[in-house]
Amino acid sequence: MSTAQVIPPRSGAAFDLKRGQYLTVIDPEGRQVSDLLVFNADDLDEVISSGRTLDYASRVYLTTGDPLYSNRSNVMLTIVEDMVGRHDFLLTPCSKDTFRIIYGDTDPHRGCFGNLLAALEPWGIAADRIPTAFNCFMNVPIDGATGAFTVEPPLSRPGDHIRFRAEMDLVIALTACSALQSNGGSFKPIHYRIEEADDA
Amino acid sequence: MSTAQVIPPRSGAAFDLKRGQYLTVIDPEGRQVSDLLVFNADDLDEVISSGRTLDYASRVYLTTGDPLYSNRSNVMLTIVEDMVGRHDFLLTPCSKDTFRIIYGDTDPHRGCFGNLLAALEPWGIAADRIPTAFNCFMNVPIDGATGAFTVEPPLSRPGDHIRFRAEMDLVIALTACSALQSNGGSFKPIHYRIEEADDA
Repeated sequence: MSTAQVIPPRSGAAFDLKRGQYLTVIDPEGRQVSDLLVFNADDLDEVISSGRTLDYASRVYLTTGDPLYSNRSNVMLTIVEDMVGRHDFLLTPCSKDTFRIIYGDTDPHRGCFGNLLAALEPWGIAADRIPTAFNCFMNVPIDGATGAFTVEPPLSRPGDHIRFRAEMDLVIALTACSALQSNGGSFKPIHYRIEEADDA
Repeated sequence: MSTAQVIPPRSGAAFDLKRGQYLTVIDPEGRQVSDLLVFNADDLDEVISSGRTLDYASRVYLTTGDPLYSNRSNVMLTIVEDMVGRHDFLLTPCSKDTFRIIYGDTDPHRGCFGNLLAALEPWGIAADRIPTAFNCFMNVPIDGATGAFTVEPPLSRPGDHIRFRAEMDLVIALTACSALQSNGGSFKPIHYRIEEADDA
């Protein structure tokens, strides 16, 4: 098994993931969110799409077996293992704007949005091209009657993971999320591992 | 009061809406969805954002008083009047892919996605720049426990409307939705009206 890579608290990373490879996102300490972005490595205008994926799933909570679609309705990743069963695919990465508008911060952190943008800089991806992320372990219960939702601590326990298979050559960006409310009140690292089909 | 413009069944339109003007989207026959897209007229890379808007609202169902934010967290439109109270902001415009994947059509209609793209052609907006739309009158109840949702007939009655105020100079695209399930099983027109502040 390959060594896990470490994303320190409130930071991000980006890397290539080849078709057929597996990506495992691990919450080493528990109750820590990781925002996941996905781009087609051969055409960066093709990106992960919350709106298409939820439409085709007829469900807002995704788990094992569910495909993640692009804005062109191609499958980019499939969830092949999920130890937690609660993730969010409604909300944008936390950002300076999140901290200003929701938390009232006067000197806001750049958040997952800024960390994703910085990590993707080598690929030349602009801020306006950052879509709604698949937010691993983010726990957003919804009141079906009113549509109101809250951001609760993740259900992930130490060492829990979610595993994806790449269905095309991809560029992935991943964070250890920077929003207090999303992470049960503290900032923790995220680990990830890339494996070949034979290792998985 | 200005004359209402007509969008025929399964078609779309696009137009300028100046800051301070009001846009009223009317369902003349009832139970008909209208997908709404919003672009900053001065910089078309700034677009309506479901992920930002829902995050700041802490609600998936929006109504009177709610602002619609851009991908840069600026308010583009404010809902100033809403006779229906149930709209969708989770799902992408219906498209050839929707009809292929969900309905199994072998010769699929271009859907709202194709109609929006065609209407926006004079502004040079590419297919990859079409985000999740604000789907006026679309009725998508969610089971809070499982996250499963269904697409039900709209709650709109003949003549019901929703009214927006433009908070910046905008390009708007609007459809009479092309998906049978979203519209209670038949395709109907949508009317819209643009008014100055003094007329509203």
